[in-house]
Amino acid sequence: MGCAKHMLSQEEVETFDRALNPHGVAVVGATNQPERVGYCVLESLLLGGIEGPIYPIHPRNKEVLGQRVYPSLAEVDGPIDLAIIALNQYATVDMVEECGQRGVKGVVCMAGGYKEMGEEGLALERRLAAVARQYKMALFGPNTLGIFNSRANLNATFWPIKIDNAQQSAISVISQSGGVGQMIVTKAMDEGVTINKWIGVGNRATLEVVDCLQYLAGDETTKVIAVFIEGIERARDFVELAAEVARHKPVIVFKAGTSGLAQQCALTHTGSMAGKPKMYQDIFEQFNLLVVDSVSQLVSACKALSLSPPAAGNRIGLFTPTAGPSIVMVDELDRLGCRLEPFTNKTRDRLDVIFQDVAVVVKNPLDAALIGYSADSYAQVAEIVLQDPNVDILIAINTEHKNRRFPVRELVSAQRAVAKPIIVCHIATQAGRDIYLEQFQSAGIPIYSDVAEAAWGAAALAQYATNTTKVEHLG
Amino acid sequence: MGCAKHMLSQEEVETFDRALNPHGVAVVGATNQPERVGYCVLESLLLGGIEGPIYPIHPRNKEVLGQRVYPSLAEVDGPIDLAIIALNQYATVDMVEECGQRGVKGVVCMAGGYKEMGEEGLALERRLAAVARQYKMALFGPNTLGIFNSRANLNATFWPIKIDNAQQSAISVISQSGGVGQMIVTKAMDEGVTINKWIGVGNRATLEVVDCLQYLAGDETTKVIAVFIEGIERARDFVELAAEVARHKPVIVFKAGTSGLAQQCALTHTGSMAGKPKMYQDIFEQFNLLVVDSVSQLVSACKALSLSPPAAGNRIGLFTPTAGPSIVMVDELDRLGCRLEPFTNKTRDRLDVIFQDVAVVVKNPLDAALIGYSADSYAQVAEIVLQDPNVDILIAINTEHKNRRFPVRELVSAQRAVAKPIIVCHIATQAGRDIYLEQFQSAGIPIYSDVAEAAWGAAALAQYATNTTKVEHLG
Repeated sequence: MGCAKHMLSQEEVETFDRALNPHGVAVVGATNQPERVGYCVLESLLLGGIEGPIYPIHPRNKEVLGQRVYPSLAEVDGPIDLAIIALNQYATVDMVEECGQRGVKGVVCMAGGYKEMGEEGLALERRLAAVARQYKMALFGPNTLGIFNSRANLNATFWPIKIDNAQQSAISVISQSGGVGQMIVTKAMDEGVTINKWIGVGNRATLEVVDCLQYLAGDETTKVIAVFIEGIERARDFVELAAEVARHKPVIVFKAGTSGLAQQCALTHTGSMAGKPKMYQDIFEQFNLLVVDSVSQLVSACKALSLSPPAAGNRIGLFTPTAGPSIVMVDELDRLGCRLEPFTNKTRDRLDVIFQDVAVVVKNPLDAALIGYSADSYAQVAEIVLQDPNVDILIAINTEHKNRRFPVRELVSAQRAVAKPIIVCHIATQAGRDIYLEQFQSAGIPIYSDVAEAAWGAAALAQYATNTTKVEHLG
Repeated sequence: MGCAKHMLSQEEVETFDRALNPHGVAVVGATNQPERVGYCVLESLLLGGIEGPIYPIHPRNKEVLGQRVYPSLAEVDGPIDLAIIALNQYATVDMVEECGQRGVKGVVCMAGGYKEMGEEGLALERRLAAVARQYKMALFGPNTLGIFNSRANLNATFWPIKIDNAQQSAISVISQSGGVGQMIVTKAMDEGVTINKWIGVGNRATLEVVDCLQYLAGDETTKVIAVFIEGIERARDFVELAAEVARHKPVIVFKAGTSGLAQQCALTHTGSMAGKPKMYQDIFEQFNLLVVDSVSQLVSACKALSLSPPAAGNRIGLFTPTAGPSIVMVDELDRLGCRLEPFTNKTRDRLDVIFQDVAVVVKNPLDAALIGYSADSYAQVAEIVLQDPNVDILIAINTEHKNRRFPVRELVSAQRAVAKPIIVCHIATQAGRDIYLEQFQSAGIPIYSDVAEAAWGAAALAQYATNTTKVEHLG
């Protein structure tokens, strides 16, 4: 990975890692007002359940959320790896200096009021960055919701939530917006996948998107990297590194601010121009990155890439008991470069045995009509399609019905036996879909309730397979 | 509405209406096997809870689902307005004849095996249509999931579900696919809106999409009409009527099968070619219809159009406590022809009072940062933006946070006072969003958890406002 020009040194990577796996966390500005950042951060830490000491800091408060408050950093005895600073933009700079002097490894600076507010703010942000560099600290922000590492039970944001199933989480997120980051996390929760590491880069005073990408590329528990950006300064470094990383783990990019109207709006947010959308699109595609248009697509793609075995190519076998949804799905698959090949003669012969006496045309996509309503024949057909040598990925559509068993066990066995990905689309309410969520997803089969989202999941597997092949041919 | 060439007569409309509001419903082919259509239909009827007698028909069965079974139609004494026929494609034709002789008003024919299966099937379907016409019956299908009318507690499908809150439902659906129809219904359930009338047109042996549109146009409880089509024979009649209907109530069209790949797949489903996608798109736009790209967009649009007061135009006021989601949203709004105008000086002066001493740039979209985190100031800002004469629709973004009150009451009062639509986007899990669902939506404010879906809701209001204005200028 020697292509990007300003890579983090090994020492910087270790500092970054310590900040995400800290022993000793200080919350500077801990208050008793529940709507304020200093309270929410402490609550997040407690909800997250990190091991090791937590040190709330405030000059006057004695206790917040049942925790003893220290009047200053100087009063804390033990080591502090991470300090979360909930002070205003001016006091933050002084506190970062104090943290540096004390040997703190990482600081999360939440205050806004820096370069996004013009010249004066930019000068202040440069001072902040200089202090962080002087003491070789990992500085997250400023102007950030924070960071979290669910594998370490660290929630260092001012968004007090508990992340469940943290030990299975394989998706890590770099977000240039806290709010969009929250969209990603909540959608992931709805989809039954959890986020491993989440980094709100904020104004990126020192740590850029590319630096976070470098760190996550080397993080063993991160299998898929999702990136939300509005615009980035070191775009070339980013795409070069991302293309390199993508040879080993998928990198999915959601770039917002692509409309003319959004271009006008982006200037005052996190202090960056949104950049020319067409230029970004061209560059991303040239470098074989996976690019998505929405948070839903981002999460749908991450879900499949994190749960499924890898696909060998982009040829979809599509099986459904009802034609309409498959037509909607094919529109999406076509747009995203997937293919549907005819089944082999052998597959057709095997299917003909099942469909004898039934008014069904055996083709891909396969509308099995009433045959698809029986669990046994559904499972048989699904496995036959999966086994077809012209199929890299099976999409199995089903519709919720109280009188029909959904052959979960059989589909799980089929994926295990054939070693190709199955994507399940179960047309139902969220609650109806959730009945099968754990069974399928713990076995490595993503289940979606929305047809478009299922198509996005399959397409991500397909695109990653073909992109990786392209890169190998070039290399 | 004298533009379409083959309109239903008044008598035909009344027959159609009777079929959807029947007194006496027969289920022909009632069986005790829960996975079979004849069982599911009866279960649907019982779950739906329709008033008036239900007559299961079967030559040998004595009882199904605790209901007495009649050996034939001839054994039934009372009137039968609707017969739901769960027999094979051949027996169905004979039964429709028998229904006609008995004076049944409407028949739902579920069997497939007609024109979608080639020449022989087409001949059979023509016989079926001829019989229905001979007896002046409303024939739904064949090859359909069925129909329902939740306001009459009629579920005449083989999909046994209970529709809640039926008496508030204002959205009616015409679907050329049962499966896509189920996608629409389940998504609507997740969004806290219910479907009023749902018509699966199937093969459309006699009743075409345009006929259903005509019926729903005259149905007082239907406020919004959603149409899913793959391809239609009387396209010109349809768009002309739809444009006419759209002067009084919104008609939203989702046309699938627009990709080259889908074109190849559509032929064997419901016996229709998908048609040239570009041609459809051009025609729809020429006639000022609302066109959507997905089921999510369709339901998001219907939700806003059915709940909100009408908008006066397409100018959005966008208010958020976090910038990123507003940039994602602006991309969608721009794509869908919405505008963001600058606030008036008066609005800016009023907002400056609230934002004094806070590092916020007062513009549209308005990123209120921390000010947006306090319920009182959130409500104040929202109302000021809503009152701006350059704003037709307010989109209010919020992020879920356990320590912050969401000013529901104040937003409801503001919409009532200012009489412009508010669209709420609450970034949260579905469960987190659902906490506020009833409070907002019963007061006519749609709430979404997904930014793109909220944008689609707002854009539907905006497009309907500008389309209606255009039509008025032409007329």
